Amino acid sequence: MPNDEGVAIVRKSLDLEEEDLVKAVRLHQYGENPRVEEVAEPAIKGPWDVIVDVGAAGLCRTDLHIIEGQWEPIQHPSLPYILGHENAGWVREVGSAVTNVKAGDTVIMHPLTSCGLCPACRVGQDSHCENATFPGVNVNGGMAEQLLTNARAVVKLDEGLQPRNVAALADAGLTAYHAVRKAADVLFPGTQAVVIGAGGLGHIGIQTLAAITSSTITVVDRSEEALELARTLGAHHTVLSTSDEEVEKQVLDITGGGAHIVFDFVGERGAELLAPRLLRNRGSHYVIGYGGAVNIPTIDIISREINVIGNLVGTYNDLVELMTLTEQGRVKLHTSIYPLDAVNDAIGDLEAGRLVGRGILIP
Amino acid sequence: MPNDEGVAIVRKSLDLEEEDLVKAVRLHQYGENPRVEEVAEPAIKGPWDVIVDVGAAGLCRTDLHIIEGQWEPIQHPSLPYILGHENAGWVREVGSAVTNVKAGDTVIMHPLTSCGLCPACRVGQDSHCENATFPGVNVNGGMAEQLLTNARAVVKLDEGLQPRNVAALADAGLTAYHAVRKAADVLFPGTQAVVIGAGGLGHIGIQTLAAITSSTITVVDRSEEALELARTLGAHHTVLSTSDEEVEKQVLDITGGGAHIVFDFVGERGAELLAPRLLRNRGSHYVIGYGGAVNIPTIDIISREINVIGNLVGTYNDLVELMTLTEQGRVKLHTSIYPLDAVNDAIGDLEAGRLVGRGILIP
Amino acid sequence: MPNDEGVAIVRKSLDLEEEDLVKAVRLHQYGENPRVEEVAEPAIKGPWDVIVDVGAAGLCRTDLHIIEGQWEPIQHPSLPYILGHENAGWVREVGSAVTNVKAGDTVIMHPLTSCGLCPACRVGQDSHCENATFPGVNVNGGMAEQLLTNARAVVKLDEGLQPRNVAALADAGLTAYHAVRKAADVLFPGTQAVVIGAGGLGHIGIQTLAAITSSTITVVDRSEEALELARTLGAHHTVLSTSDEEVEKQVLDITGGGAHIVFDFVGERGAELLAPRLLRNRGSHYVIGYGGAVNIPTIDIISREINVIGNLVGTYNDLVELMTLTEQGRVKLHTSIYPLDAVNDAIGDLEAGRLVGRGILIP
Amino acid sequence: MPNDEGVAIVRKSLDLEEEDLVKAVRLHQYGENPRVEEVAEPAIKGPWDVIVDVGAAGLCRTDLHIIEGQWEPIQHPSLPYILGHENAGWVREVGSAVTNVKAGDTVIMHPLTSCGLCPACRVGQDSHCENATFPGVNVNGGMAEQLLTNARAVVKLDEGLQPRNVAALADAGLTAYHAVRKAADVLFPGTQAVVIGAGGLGHIGIQTLAAITSSTITVVDRSEEALELARTLGAHHTVLSTSDEEVEKQVLDITGGGAHIVFDFVGERGAELLAPRLLRNRGSHYVIGYGGAVNIPTIDIISREINVIGNLVGTYNDLVELMTLTEQGRVKLHTSIYPLDAVNDAIGDLEAGRLVGRGILIP
Repeated sequence: MPNDEGVAIVRKSLDLEEEDLVKAVRLHQYGENPRVEEVAEPAIKGPWDVIVDVGAAGLCRTDLHIIEGQWEPIQHPSLPYILGHENAGWVREVGSAVTNVKAGDTVIMHPLTSCGLCPACRVGQDSHCENATFPGVNVNGGMAEQLLTNARAVVKLDEGLQPRNVAALADAGLTAYHAVRKAADVLFPGTQAVVIGAGGLGHIGIQTLAAITSSTITVVDRSEEALELARTLGAHHTVLSTSDEEVEKQVLDITGGGAHIVFDFVGERGAELLAPRLLRNRGSHYVIGYGGAVNIPTIDIISREINVIGNLVGTYNDLVELMTLTEQGRVKLHTSIYPLDAVNDAIGDLEAGRLVGRGILIP
Repeated sequence: MPNDEGVAIVRKSLDLEEEDLVKAVRLHQYGENPRVEEVAEPAIKGPWDVIVDVGAAGLCRTDLHIIEGQWEPIQHPSLPYILGHENAGWVREVGSAVTNVKAGDTVIMHPLTSCGLCPACRVGQDSHCENATFPGVNVNGGMAEQLLTNARAVVKLDEGLQPRNVAALADAGLTAYHAVRKAADVLFPGTQAVVIGAGGLGHIGIQTLAAITSSTITVVDRSEEALELARTLGAHHTVLSTSDEEVEKQVLDITGGGAHIVFDFVGERGAELLAPRLLRNRGSHYVIGYGGAVNIPTIDIISREINVIGNLVGTYNDLVELMTLTEQGRVKLHTSIYPLDAVNDAIGDLEAGRLVGRGILIP
Repeated sequence: MPNDEGVAIVRKSLDLEEEDLVKAVRLHQYGENPRVEEVAEPAIKGPWDVIVDVGAAGLCRTDLHIIEGQWEPIQHPSLPYILGHENAGWVREVGSAVTNVKAGDTVIMHPLTSCGLCPACRVGQDSHCENATFPGVNVNGGMAEQLLTNARAVVKLDEGLQPRNVAALADAGLTAYHAVRKAADVLFPGTQAVVIGAGGLGHIGIQTLAAITSSTITVVDRSEEALELARTLGAHHTVLSTSDEEVEKQVLDITGGGAHIVFDFVGERGAELLAPRLLRNRGSHYVIGYGGAVNIPTIDIISREINVIGNLVGTYNDLVELMTLTEQGRVKLHTSIYPLDAVNDAIGDLEAGRLVGRGILIP
Repeated sequence: MPNDEGVAIVRKSLDLEEEDLVKAVRLHQYGENPRVEEVAEPAIKGPWDVIVDVGAAGLCRTDLHIIEGQWEPIQHPSLPYILGHENAGWVREVGSAVTNVKAGDTVIMHPLTSCGLCPACRVGQDSHCENATFPGVNVNGGMAEQLLTNARAVVKLDEGLQPRNVAALADAGLTAYHAVRKAADVLFPGTQAVVIGAGGLGHIGIQTLAAITSSTITVVDRSEEALELARTLGAHHTVLSTSDEEVEKQVLDITGGGAHIVFDFVGERGAELLAPRLLRNRGSHYVIGYGGAVNIPTIDIISREINVIGNLVGTYNDLVELMTLTEQGRVKLHTSIYPLDAVNDAIGDLEAGRLVGRGILIP
């Protein structure tokens, strides 16, 4: 397996093939920590299947919510199953019809395995594929030595990129990129972009805004430390959130009358209600974070002609573009590395707020 | 003044010029009916001013709300002032810098007199002009023999169009057109447009959908009579609104999983909460009517990637296009004609629900 | 096999399976007529393969050019091979990974079998797929009892549509639709669309313009008969082409200063040089027909800010939309039906100008 | 008059008003150098007029062509008249209806004085205004102490910007910006932009590409020195133009199969024929420079689905955006300063190739 320094270490594939067990992090019961255990290695079943030797798997808040059981009613996976929905690694084996990657290729995985045949897929909106699986959420994921995915999910990585440095971009980063990319056409010189929340998604959003738009970027956060980071990532102005009134006053002042686009990476705890107040006429509130509810009188919506725009995870093409930016050094992740065996330490650190940057598990 | 049959009757302009009084409908006090009285005729003051001999002025629900005083806190006009914000007629006199119309031209007026210099005007979004007046709402309007407007508000009409047949398109019709026009790019063959409310605005919306899009049109209304009209105007499917559950069930069925766009011409009394339930993934709720409040959990907004789009009155260019459709016979208004002196009869009929179609006052 | 009247006739599939030969029109040598002969029936090889019982195959001028050998240097098929690139029929058998159609479904075939993995496919531009085959042009086509295609090429047809009525839309019609669809966003009320050539492609283009745009349509042709047809299909104005000067004069007059878009369905014999002269400032010359060369001084291109837009065959999604319009009765083909055995009669009629409408071969 | 160091020097306006003569560079006869002479100062005539104390006027190749008489048949100005179509300065006096600037404001002038009433103006395409004058080309320009322009041409400058540093952006820079801005929506990460010609327009184009797009930029030029500059301005790759074959080979290699957009800032001497060869399928040749003729077989246009896009000078909004970039330090001009009296020295230097960067005349 190639290591992060780019020196290829020859994988002893013959040895591996003799074994039929791989290490994996499986959730057995909601409310309990997952267990690291040995499971049967995945097998190619369909012509589009791809098996990947996992190089890195991101750990994120969604994993905590999965463990708590919040996603059960929506995705109802069969327990026990393997967690991990932000994955990168090296192709191990491919199905009979796969032509876009071959064994040994370094790849990052789009979170969904799309079909390529449904209407959403046909227009490039594969994150709305009608027939997709969502590894790590509704089927076995990537916190394991091997992952089963498919040909339409794998993005081949440039030589300069290592799984551990990009894995966490596969879902969280991709969501932030997607929202900014959708808005990019209107963010020309002189326009005002406001970011609420400079955390995990937000700090990718700020870098993307600086890389692909020419807007003026103002970042709002409750943490002075997060704002400090935001400034190094491209924010032109920052506003420490003390009260809604203060934020509104400062943002309207800085932006000369309100934002063209507010990127709301929080979507709860009041941010979702504050966001529309930060818009100028004809502006748009991009909802990315979630938890609260948007609530705006229709008279305000029409008289100001403002919009609320929903944002899911990005498309496959978004992920290709995000990897290009990463390769060019224009988007960077802050990470904390853990061995796969230490997954519950990582979970503990994440819950306790001790985890700096994005947690990455290395099998 | 040309009459509606297209036969020109020579206006005795010399006589008129000797007089300095014109008949007008003025509001003296909120809560009281306006009075028909003689007032000084308007005078050209600025280089872009245009004075129009009013041919027809639309009466609409907004006038009732103005009389009730609802708009006072927003627009605070100086009482007494002349009502009438949907106006068409013939140019009488123009300011020194006006080059686009001349005395005698038949014109319809955009509701706002825009400046042509502010950022909104420079991108063709003149309905957001920073320096506009709004005749009939915050300054003297068109329920009078003459109206003061400006060069950037007047749209020259084709010979085939008469003021009484188009006046009511100047505001209500223009708003409906604007919303459909903004959505038109995505309403190609096979897409599903759903209209909530087939009333004054809705029936223009339906005709516009049929004229400028190739979507399949489904109309929802509480009145079977309104649905009957909708079918003659281009609706492919209609749904009688008995309960939200029933509407949702039928619309999801007809549209094969939800609308790409829901045009909500009601925006209150529950329509604004029902609309998002009628959308498919990636669909948009176009808010046009108002009174209620949009309220959607952010988790729904992001997981379905749906949008809420605000819609104000149309731009000047929208009005030009709407007049083209009208001239081509693709959009038609149903009207009831009253002489200007009978304005309070018209108001009474409108309040009592006796007014069929749009009320038109003829000076 | 279902017949055209919609009455299902049970296919004796058991009998057929025992046979391994099907009738087909094969080209053995350039410059010679193709032969009707028995060949081995196609077999499913890949997981996305689809075999179709051909219901109808269009014959078009491109077939004559193939027979003449003009496409050999571009597509170099291995002779002998089966002609026919405009095909519709009923699914007979599907590969292991095909989920979007099943045996018995009525389908029309996109001319290319795209891969779903290359960059063009991922953005829905499958007609530029890097890995496609082009049945009837570079591999065996549909002038046969059976056709091998793939899952990404088949569009399931509504019950109301029969193969013989739509087959010729699969390539020629799709090309016309694609060009109009690309321009549709700017063809709002009051804009001027000019069509050069009301023949095979042009008459689909005119119907599409009338169905999906609200532009004013002016059609230019050398044949009064073609213009007569154009008027019944939605043309608002027609210009008989006697000389370039006369056409230019009339078109500039009708359009009030030139077209926003000229659709050039000829692209040779001077049409490609005339087209830019028919544009207004900021207008676009859509090239669809071919044979000549565009030649415009750069000073004209920049001072008038005009564009030349290339148009290939449509995408899969374009074909889905075109089938929707056809099902709605908004696009119709004029056809002449021949049995497959009479292919060389059809070819003779096409060459001699005796073939009215599009020639359709029925196996 | 404020000086370039930002220190305001009080203008002795009383003294000036007593005089009625200003210094100006006037062309008396084609083929002869213009003369510096005293002429009557301009006067406000219309309500939208603005008189500007010129701070700087750019000298460009178009001025040489005007002097040679090349523009006479197109613009036919009345000789003698004042040259200078790239102007910036300070507002001196405004007409009765002007509200967007006041005396003392620092401004740059859009090259056209648009009307705000014609269809082009109403959609923000004011560079196609039907009623515009073009100071310095068809009426008196800005190589003088004062310039008559209008309210719709003036862009108020941020305090940090001085006329001498921006004047040459008013026409040449604006044209380059406009072309890149039109293409910006498709130039996302991973796309390939190719620039032909890194001269006066090209070097602004390269800076704009780097500032408002995230494409990979490859620059082609015949001068190694120009390529050196290009690299400092944001070019990722450069190609020294030795032969068309060599350029094609290198560009196709660097771009992985051709450019998405080629910006042709030359448009003559073969560049206009080479450009289409550098495109990938679905790519666009943006024509900006002129002199030659585009010549492409229609079969190439359709089979590759490529486009040719014309580009005139930018709009007023483009100029506002370009000034924003300039203020942010993202676009910079290289200039050589001459006093107005030395205009013929500057012309001589420009003709002889001795003028480094853009020539700027200071009254």
